[in-house]
Amino acid sequence: MPADDPTPRRSGGRAARKKRRSDPLPRHQRPVHPGMAGGQYRPLTQTQMDRIHEAALTALERIGLSGAPPSGVKIMTGAGAMLGPDDRLRFPRRVVERALALAGRNIRLHGRRSEHDLDLTASKVHFGTAGAAVHLVDADGKIYRETGVQDLHDAARIADKLENIHFFQRPMICRDIADSREMDLNTIHAACTGTTKHVGISFAEAGHVADGLSLLHMVAGSEAEWRARPFASCSICFVVPPMKFATEACQVLEACITGGMPVLLLSAGQSGATAPAPLAGAVVQAVAECLAGLVYVTAMAPGHPAIFGTWPFVSDLRTGAMSGGSGEQALLTAAVAQMHGYYDLPGGAAAGIADAKLPDMQAGWEQMCSNLLAGLSGLNMVYEAAGMHASLLGYCHESLILGNDLIGQALRCLRGIEVNDDTLALDVMAEVCLEGPGHYLGAQQTLRLMQSEYLYPDLADRSTPGEWEEHGRPDLVARASARKREILAAPSGTSAAALDPATERAIRARFNIHLPAQ
Amino acid sequence: MPADDPTPRRSGGRAARKKRRSDPLPRHQRPVHPGMAGGQYRPLTQTQMDRIHEAALTALERIGLSGAPPSGVKIMTGAGAMLGPDDRLRFPRRVVERALALAGRNIRLHGRRSEHDLDLTASKVHFGTAGAAVHLVDADGKIYRETGVQDLHDAARIADKLENIHFFQRPMICRDIADSREMDLNTIHAACTGTTKHVGISFAEAGHVADGLSLLHMVAGSEAEWRARPFASCSICFVVPPMKFATEACQVLEACITGGMPVLLLSAGQSGATAPAPLAGAVVQAVAECLAGLVYVTAMAPGHPAIFGTWPFVSDLRTGAMSGGSGEQALLTAAVAQMHGYYDLPGGAAAGIADAKLPDMQAGWEQMCSNLLAGLSGLNMVYEAAGMHASLLGYCHESLILGNDLIGQALRCLRGIEVNDDTLALDVMAEVCLEGPGHYLGAQQTLRLMQSEYLYPDLADRSTPGEWEEHGRPDLVARASARKREILAAPSGTSAAALDPATERAIRARFNIHLPAQ
Repeated sequence: MPADDPTPRRSGGRAARKKRRSDPLPRHQRPVHPGMAGGQYRPLTQTQMDRIHEAALTALERIGLSGAPPSGVKIMTGAGAMLGPDDRLRFPRRVVERALALAGRNIRLHGRRSEHDLDLTASKVHFGTAGAAVHLVDADGKIYRETGVQDLHDAARIADKLENIHFFQRPMICRDIADSREMDLNTIHAACTGTTKHVGISFAEAGHVADGLSLLHMVAGSEAEWRARPFASCSICFVVPPMKFATEACQVLEACITGGMPVLLLSAGQSGATAPAPLAGAVVQAVAECLAGLVYVTAMAPGHPAIFGTWPFVSDLRTGAMSGGSGEQALLTAAVAQMHGYYDLPGGAAAGIADAKLPDMQAGWEQMCSNLLAGLSGLNMVYEAAGMHASLLGYCHESLILGNDLIGQALRCLRGIEVNDDTLALDVMAEVCLEGPGHYLGAQQTLRLMQSEYLYPDLADRSTPGEWEEHGRPDLVARASARKREILAAPSGTSAAALDPATERAIRARFNIHLPAQ
Repeated sequence: MPADDPTPRRSGGRAARKKRRSDPLPRHQRPVHPGMAGGQYRPLTQTQMDRIHEAALTALERIGLSGAPPSGVKIMTGAGAMLGPDDRLRFPRRVVERALALAGRNIRLHGRRSEHDLDLTASKVHFGTAGAAVHLVDADGKIYRETGVQDLHDAARIADKLENIHFFQRPMICRDIADSREMDLNTIHAACTGTTKHVGISFAEAGHVADGLSLLHMVAGSEAEWRARPFASCSICFVVPPMKFATEACQVLEACITGGMPVLLLSAGQSGATAPAPLAGAVVQAVAECLAGLVYVTAMAPGHPAIFGTWPFVSDLRTGAMSGGSGEQALLTAAVAQMHGYYDLPGGAAAGIADAKLPDMQAGWEQMCSNLLAGLSGLNMVYEAAGMHASLLGYCHESLILGNDLIGQALRCLRGIEVNDDTLALDVMAEVCLEGPGHYLGAQQTLRLMQSEYLYPDLADRSTPGEWEEHGRPDLVARASARKREILAAPSGTSAAALDPATERAIRARFNIHLPAQ
């Protein structure tokens, strides 16, 4: 800033202008928001997508899927699938085409508060958490320890406060709950009492779904209220790639559909291990598997909200281990997002995974790479977008918090560049160059666009080296830790996500809730 | 990896297979290389580019540029520009269109070794360093100190060893050399004796160019050899935005053109300060300024190699400070890359800048964001792509080293996804699912693609949490420091970049070389 403030009278002085510049904008005027449209990045051409679609149809016709439960065989053969002597279900292309015609579109995933509803039409992009991490990454101590229900609840509470985390799917396993039914139910409770954003959960067995739905009905107020605005979706690994239904998960799928719960049809192959090594082949297989899932869902309930969950992962082929932080992963995720658009289906995939063990420079570049390409390719639901380390094995609260800045920046890119008479700025340029002060610092246009055109991070450091040294060379992760403590210091029981005391008591009376009463 | 190795006979056992998997590929078979084609990401539509072009032409006609030296006024008015009573040069559109027709295309920037030549046609992408940092970031001690000629030479030596750093433009100032002529000459010497890749330098005054060229002729062997393969380009901030020629730099420009040196026509406005606040307006101004530069160059020497250096930067409008790590920066860089393609001109811009003071998570996401979008938008020369911190004020050797992995990953994304009968993998899928082991680990296709389809980082950690703990929880930056020490431990005088002793002696006899003789 120049010493001679160019507009002292209009701005009411530099301090006042600086204050006005840092006042938060009303939500609709902010530079980024949930549901911004992607599609500026297209790794696949139309012809390539046609070929992938054709190959997926051929795979469903020629190879088909094994492993469907008897109920699923009945449902899918009823829709035209054919059970071979090798017990594989094969899908003539007209069956798949009919499923595509019957698929749920114009899908909205509800938050417990409507301000958090997610509109999954077109290429609208939302970022959130997901996963099944088994380690909590202690960023201070740089150690990995087992995850527990309190960690999950804390993550939900943190995500609730982060503007650019648009939904909260369970990112970690409650390893301190041995009984799998109790774990499923406590996962729902710990997530729902931490955030009013849309929640994603899962069930280990179909037998847990009825209890889970009862719990969700209690949170909603009644079954009718739940069915009107189901604020939780179920993530279902309904296939075990390659090309095999996961028998038990299919039963979960059926129970969720019956219970009015949106489902994520998740195919999580790993290239070179459980999916073909070429990236194109991994996309083909994921698309084929999810199309089979779509036949399943639409045969049961046409229009049921089902997210096309092609989640092809990457192997490091030297070791066979997963590499969620690789460039290949970013490409796979972007490519499947394009396929979702090809079918005009609500879709989700994984991005934002770090292979890095800690929230370090590697984590930053890995998380940005796939989140950015996922967003720019128009992925509706970007799962695992924040906090995820060690290729899904570790979850880090500090990283989740820093992910809010990282994703904000990806969203800013997604918003792109507006080109119109105002933004082309010829008149401002003429005034500044021919009549004005020779710079744009005090121009009305600059002041007007400061908050709506530019995004400012919460924790990312933009100070000069001199300021940075004056402030004691602040450490990024330490600042995130401080923010975590600040968020978690408020009593959980008084948050907007907390249930009313009577409901909380009723839930605790009926189920064994492990989280201490707040 | 499964315990029962699926292909023991074909592979000669797991250990042998693992070894074969980790053998380096010949250069042409590697998954990424310099000059891969971008263009999959297009933030601007064709109509938007047309409007930006029109606005730039209008700005050149209506506003024009002040500040040209008398020689430049003569050259440009000779080409049809008009000097107004306000001493501004204005450019009728036919003058600009003629410059575009006369511009150098099919440009090759030479390395001292031809294997490092850069082909700047179409949307071929190259990543390298640049800048004028004044602080060396000591990543171990987390301190900033003044940069010196040894730091510059070290950076050149490190860049020489990094596969994904394709050129070495001077990234920092030799602050230990007070005399500006000596600084310019020592910069050339320190860079050229550190790397055989293409080098970018600059001159503070036109009076330094003759000596600089003499030095370059000595390095090349003769003036004729220099002119046949000029392995150094001159970065010239020929404008002081908004819309004003930098008088002295214009004289440098003229001297470089006469000396057969490729030039980078650099316009470095800063949105909201020295360029309009709307991103579109910042692009318009940068394009207009560089088009004026193109009139200048083509009027002197049609076809002279000139890189269209639209480098619009971003201000954090709360403070007026630069924010090179922002999403807005990534968008600006990608947009100007599209404009280079619009004109079919060789172009360059800045990306990979971190606002972060250290190579931390923020640095990772900031550097990846703009490098990735720069590459995917097809920017020919991605300047400042590695090592740059504190929004250009700090340079970090460890970060440069880690940037090699980061840029490798961006290049992998740039390569995209090949779709053909082989990669669609239907036959492999059928074999694995219907006849085979139910996984792809031992498939011939997997083994074949392992090194050509997948990129493996040098320093990024992909170990499991267990392995990571066994290895003592290695720190990423510490590993980069170790690599730096390893690279710099070899005597500089014996490297491929070192000059033959007679030349080195002759240079030292003629110029005051500050770098100790090796």
